[in-house]
Amino acid sequence: MRLWARTAASVTRIQTIFPEVTTDLATAAQGADLCVLCTPVSAMPALAESLAPHLSANAVVTDAGSTKANLVQTLAHLLPDRFVGSHPMAGSDRSGFDAARADLFEDAITILTPTANTSPRALEAARDLWLAVGSRTVEMSPEAHDAAVARISHLPHAAAAALVNAISPEGSRELLALAGGGYRDSTRIAASPPALWSEIFLENQSAVVAGLDDLTAALNELSGLIRAQDGPGIEAFLAKAKTTREFLR
Amino acid sequence: MRLWARTAASVTRIQTIFPEVTTDLATAAQGADLCVLCTPVSAMPALAESLAPHLSANAVVTDAGSTKANLVQTLAHLLPDRFVGSHPMAGSDRSGFDAARADLFEDAITILTPTANTSPRALEAARDLWLAVGSRTVEMSPEAHDAAVARISHLPHAAAAALVNAISPEGSRELLALAGGGYRDSTRIAASPPALWSEIFLENQSAVVAGLDDLTAALNELSGLIRAQDGPGIEAFLAKAKTTREFLR
Repeated sequence: MRLWARTAASVTRIQTIFPEVTTDLATAAQGADLCVLCTPVSAMPALAESLAPHLSANAVVTDAGSTKANLVQTLAHLLPDRFVGSHPMAGSDRSGFDAARADLFEDAITILTPTANTSPRALEAARDLWLAVGSRTVEMSPEAHDAAVARISHLPHAAAAALVNAISPEGSRELLALAGGGYRDSTRIAASPPALWSEIFLENQSAVVAGLDDLTAALNELSGLIRAQDGPGIEAFLAKAKTTREFLR
Repeated sequence: MRLWARTAASVTRIQTIFPEVTTDLATAAQGADLCVLCTPVSAMPALAESLAPHLSANAVVTDAGSTKANLVQTLAHLLPDRFVGSHPMAGSDRSGFDAARADLFEDAITILTPTANTSPRALEAARDLWLAVGSRTVEMSPEAHDAAVARISHLPHAAAAALVNAISPEGSRELLALAGGGYRDSTRIAASPPALWSEIFLENQSAVVAGLDDLTAALNELSGLIRAQDGPGIEAFLAKAKTTREFLR
């Protein structure tokens, strides 16, 4: 296995733990059966274009990007007959090599997004990789992926950031000093990298905006019930959420 | 130490671990220096009224309720010169004796809510209790408490429930199967007891409604930025949340 990193500083840092790392794409790609693109989605097309001439005849390429519809179309064109999209649903609010964990993918789910044109060989190689690092896999179209992750991943990130900004618009330390586990858990992902998430929200714009509309509607429904002092109505709203959430226990 | 429980079934369950438990208030209160009311807020006035005749001359009473302004006024009247309000900011989405943990209050913060009429003796006894079980304490008025917890505790609970209901209105198991740590963390408290939280939202109605208004405004701001494809604006919104959230690291 070899790693490619964009900057010499990253290479120096990574080398203290893993020696096979380079800033040179040709060196990194040489003889590889499988390449995984792990940059922000916006950087992937240029990276794929630079990578293409250095790939072995049978090399397969996949990625770890958070949005798929636009990206898969672009990369399938740049890497014909050897690309399939992947999205491992794992990670945290931290980024960079220092956030790496050996068990990151254990019990996680990875979404593979083959299309009618995807080579079965590419799909199989990518699936084998994600299974080998401990995740389960599901397959869906790039468009179905984007609609699903808008709900299950992008909307919670947007909500966490809005919640933090609504609670303490001046970043009141007095108020934050009172925070218990509820605040901590429900806002943890508000500490995620802003540039990465701005890009994800724009890449998946219409589905994220639709999700935000639904969330605002749900909040208005709850607020209306509280204003009306409708105890049974509030309880039914909360019981519905509890029942849904408990599917995950 | 003695425990009081409302039902014989609870007493039977608790006795397997802690023998000094009874459904009889007089027995539970006899000779006690300090009594802590740990029921839903709506049950406390009747409980305090039943408890009052059984208290020793110097006994102090405090509580663990989530709202304070109305409650402290009522209980201070029923238990003159011996009551002070407390709110330990600890717990989880679980309830009942089986959710008990020896380290529940460690590193938690407990808010004490004395008023101009609170006996210094009562305040000191309650403060000593919460410090002894491992929490830190802060003091504020019952009204300031309710405004603060509406933001730092009640609003996150309302948001988590709305987020779950918005994401999967039909409780779609297919979608929930994709949930990663972000969804799990930001919605964990949506599994909290509906009856308890309905009561809290009603008890603290105006502050919770104001918080929901601010949250809706923040979501509309973010949605507007995404619709306008304003990358720097989205990034600034997320960066503000990240900075605030990182105070808690």
